[in-house]
Amino acid sequence: MQRACFLLKIKTDRMEEYKARHAAVRPDMLQALSECGWRNYSLFLREDGLLVGYFETEDLAAARACMAQREVNTRWQADMAPFFEELGGRRPDEKIMPFEEVFHLA
Amino acid sequence: MQRACFLLKIKTDRMEEYKARHAAVRPDMLQALSECGWRNYSLFLREDGLLVGYFETEDLAAARACMAQREVNTRWQADMAPFFEELGGRRPDEKIMPFEEVFHLA
Repeated sequence: MQRACFLLKIKTDRMEEYKARHAAVRPDMLQALSECGWRNYSLFLREDGLLVGYFETEDLAAARACMAQREVNTRWQADMAPFFEELGGRRPDEKIMPFEEVFHLA
Repeated sequence: MQRACFLLKIKTDRMEEYKARHAAVRPDMLQALSECGWRNYSLFLREDGLLVGYFETEDLAAARACMAQREVNTRWQADMAPFFEELGGRRPDEKIMPFEEVFHLA
């Protein structure tokens, strides 16, 4: 099992809408994540808009490649892009930054 | 089950030592975490020293209060303090910032 995390920044004036959208994610998006092997996936939002993502998967590269091929993800990422700061023209799911897991306690 | 995350900043010139220390955490520290209900606990380190922590527990307040009472944790936090930037005189485990979980997919 691989564990991964990533950081993004939500525009502070869009945080409530971002939370509302994630309280009702499209079922076909949830299904795509599950089919692509994303497990125990959480998003945490801080008051200043900093967003932490965490998920577990058997194969991180495969899980990301699988989602990159899903049309529902392309639409979802396009919908979410206006909520994020400083994406530099890249999709949010391309911004998963390289963190190294330095400790794990089961 | 509650899920929690936190952020800290490691001094970039201390990152290798920080990693080495976490590759060999004292058994009594690991035992204390387990006894205090910290589960599936990971630390992720980015190249610039940003550290993301993630863990799961039945009761976050109780899990933190339990560790705060353990002498091994007091010693461990004192040992780790020099690795962190900008702690403002507080222990690293007092810096767990309030993130709200806005999404979870099992």
